Amino acid sequence: MSSAVVDGIGLLVTNDPTVGEGPLGLVRNASVVFQDGVVIAVGPAGQVADRRIDAGGRCVIPGFVDSHTHLVFAGDRGDEFAARMAGRPYEAGGIRVSVAATRAATDDELRTLAAARRAEARRAGITTIEIKSGYGLDVAHETRCLRVAGEITPETTFLGAHVVPPEFAGRIDDYVHHVSTDMLDAVAPHARWIDAFCEVGAFDAEQCRQVLAAGRERGLGLRLHANQLGHGPGVQLAVEMGCASADHCTYLSDADIAALAGSDTVATFLPATDFSTRQPYPNARRVIDAGATVAIATNCNPGSSYTTSMSFCIALAVRDMHMTPEEALLAATLGGALALRRDDVGVLCPGARADLVVLEAPSYTHLVYRPGVPLVHAVVQRGIAG
Amino acid sequence: MSSAVVDGIGLLVTNDPTVGEGPLGLVRNASVVFQDGVVIAVGPAGQVADRRIDAGGRCVIPGFVDSHTHLVFAGDRGDEFAARMAGRPYEAGGIRVSVAATRAATDDELRTLAAARRAEARRAGITTIEIKSGYGLDVAHETRCLRVAGEITPETTFLGAHVVPPEFAGRIDDYVHHVSTDMLDAVAPHARWIDAFCEVGAFDAEQCRQVLAAGRERGLGLRLHANQLGHGPGVQLAVEMGCASADHCTYLSDADIAALAGSDTVATFLPATDFSTRQPYPNARRVIDAGATVAIATNCNPGSSYTTSMSFCIALAVRDMHMTPEEALLAATLGGALALRRDDVGVLCPGARADLVVLEAPSYTHLVYRPGVPLVHAVVQRGIAG
Repeated sequence: MSSAVVDGIGLLVTNDPTVGEGPLGLVRNASVVFQDGVVIAVGPAGQVADRRIDAGGRCVIPGFVDSHTHLVFAGDRGDEFAARMAGRPYEAGGIRVSVAATRAATDDELRTLAAARRAEARRAGITTIEIKSGYGLDVAHETRCLRVAGEITPETTFLGAHVVPPEFAGRIDDYVHHVSTDMLDAVAPHARWIDAFCEVGAFDAEQCRQVLAAGRERGLGLRLHANQLGHGPGVQLAVEMGCASADHCTYLSDADIAALAGSDTVATFLPATDFSTRQPYPNARRVIDAGATVAIATNCNPGSSYTTSMSFCIALAVRDMHMTPEEALLAATLGGALALRRDDVGVLCPGARADLVVLEAPSYTHLVYRPGVPLVHAVVQRGIAG
Repeated sequence: MSSAVVDGIGLLVTNDPTVGEGPLGLVRNASVVFQDGVVIAVGPAGQVADRRIDAGGRCVIPGFVDSHTHLVFAGDRGDEFAARMAGRPYEAGGIRVSVAATRAATDDELRTLAAARRAEARRAGITTIEIKSGYGLDVAHETRCLRVAGEITPETTFLGAHVVPPEFAGRIDDYVHHVSTDMLDAVAPHARWIDAFCEVGAFDAEQCRQVLAAGRERGLGLRLHANQLGHGPGVQLAVEMGCASADHCTYLSDADIAALAGSDTVATFLPATDFSTRQPYPNARRVIDAGATVAIATNCNPGSSYTTSMSFCIALAVRDMHMTPEEALLAATLGGALALRRDDVGVLCPGARADLVVLEAPSYTHLVYRPGVPLVHAVVQRGIAG
């Protein structure tokens, strides 16, 4: 396959401090050469390759790594959203509305909807994406949703323990057993990760531990929805179980922060969710200053965060969670990669995937300075420009 | 000229309660016919015209009316922005950085920069736009900036009283006199409105009154930057002078709200500015409930709000200023029109300008439900699709 170069990069973010300035590894007047979808050289402008893409002096960043989405679903919950904005609180139970719509959809409908959202996310600069199940909640539909997700990404996550489906109403322990045995048997070939929603109204710590332990026995990696709607045991459980990521982290005690800082569990913030549910924004500053690794993800889903805009999440993280623009960009790229235990994305250095975003801006700072403005000029994913 | 129809509209927002349901005048399965850039019929789907644009079941809204921008400037203040996010407070003085850059730019540079921003705003669904001067601050440069603005829009506003320029340092009253006499003489043929920045660090109430009164004598309409950075006399002055709009309204006393409610001065909120300067969001709910007319605008400018995204402003207005999605949409369309004393835009009814936006969504609710996502599918401005 022929090589290609993105040349004329005014400001390149590599996320590799060994090749550039500061934690973002900044290089000015740079170019990036790649072949077969992999970066083969990062250096000054003017490197030669078979094909040339001119960045025109713009800023180039690694593609966003979105480590938390629920892209496979049917139905629209815009009315529920509007009611919430008029004062109705967010509750986990709204998930069941999406379960009913998702079960009722045909395979083709689900596939078309998910593909459209994936395309939208790509236009927003997301080049690596995780997708959870969790709107099927029975063997057939969870398997189907993971199959559809698997056609889009290898980062598929089994979230049978999202909420208790109607057929198990009042029998939560039976449902947890089902998820941890028969359902897991069926879906395991289609999932890389297992996840659970540890929250009042969803599953308690013991139930989540049971689900995660069963997944680990099957060879799945572990993740956890933790401390979204209030203080709870989720973050501590995620650290105890060695989860790759504890997601939401909206309510963090000092002990939670200390646990995260003493572990390699990534604290994944979902700013658009706190926006869309009117939760208070967590103070990411405290978490970073304590030494924990942080990520930012969109949590794209029909109930609590129906966005694919990582830029929007970054802007909120800076304005309302008190990250710096540099920390927020790192969290949305390298942080996401760490939350997925990936070392081939979230960074632009030889050997990494050729996933990059050309911004319609001279600096990544514009992701925050220009909130709401679509700043993605071009996306290169595995070396393919679009 | 031939007629055209936007057909297949799943949900049409007319903002005309006499032709549709509720305050937004909603019509389902609708079409809009226009000729010579003017709407000639609003009715059910299937109306016939020479040319047909298929909305494919999407939601169509009136084009956004952005009644407050500062689009004509040169220079980038991304670094100042990043420093502010790291804790430095916003002060009016940063405006002088843009004044220096704007004065140093050539006519062609200014024109190119402004045109690019106008194009970006159009892609964001803005079909009517107001543009202020205020980065020239001497006779030649204010005139030049208003000429460039006038090539883009008839809604041009003279804002010589933005800050005191360096050559008048320490001589604020001399500058106010200059603005109100010689500068006004020169710019009046190029401006429809006059505005002033009533704020600590800019101009006090008496100075603003002098500027506005001089403008009124010249036949200009009046507007005022009021109560942005703290409580002050701006809103009361705007009402007293009969300004079309009092803009910012971030800090409102009960007396301010009562004054607005008892007047036809529109309270124009600039949510992205409060976002970008970390000001507290005003409670628009109180203002609306008191009976005042409200608008939302982007305040696109290089210092305190560098965005053209009216959708972003609407999402903030709902999430953080406690408007409903309906109120926010009205404020960004009809509210903006009222703030510009226009009755031909912000509404879709026979006789109105054919300015409309086809949303990539089944409902306007998605402007808030899907924050950060570019939802503009197509824009029709004066009957021209793009």
